[in-house]
Amino acid sequence: ADPAVGQKLYETTCAACHGATGVSIAPIYPNLVDQKEQYLVQQLKAFRDGSRQNPIMQPMAKNLSDTDIANIAAYLSNLKP
Amino acid sequence: ADPAVGQKLYETTCAACHGATGVSIAPIYPNLVDQKEQYLVQQLKAFRDGSRQNPIMQPMAKNLSDTDIANIAAYLSNLKP
Repeated sequence: ADPAVGQKLYETTCAACHGATGVSIAPIYPNLVDQKEQYLVQQLKAFRDGSRQNPIMQPMAKNLSDTDIANIAAYLSNLKP
Repeated sequence: ADPAVGQKLYETTCAACHGATGVSIAPIYPNLVDQKEQYLVQQLKAFRDGSRQNPIMQPMAKNLSDTDIANIAAYLSNLKP
């Protein structure tokens, strides 16, 4: 996976809620900084296929490819607090 | 909420998978250290009422009271990396 590509994708798609540094802007949005890579991949795929329900996240994940998901997860899991 | 009570509950119920310091022992278990308090409460309640599905977490959350959940979340959100 390519964390640099993941960073660009994260900053355009996710940072608005999850924060530029992976510390989210609101109490009900999870912090993602330094989260487990495989967990992130699993949850994004669950939002994408609907096995995890969330009105905000499902549309976000809908048009992410497996590569997008791998790159974002690689970037976030290397992001240190 | 009482983080000290939350710590005891966390250490007996959750630490085995999520780690003594909130850094989990396995790639598919999320790190919980320094996670958002309200997010933790929301997810534990979702596992408890089944609106979030997970074969491992649902039985764990099943017998947690609202107070247990508040205490655990208070403990974890104050736990610094």
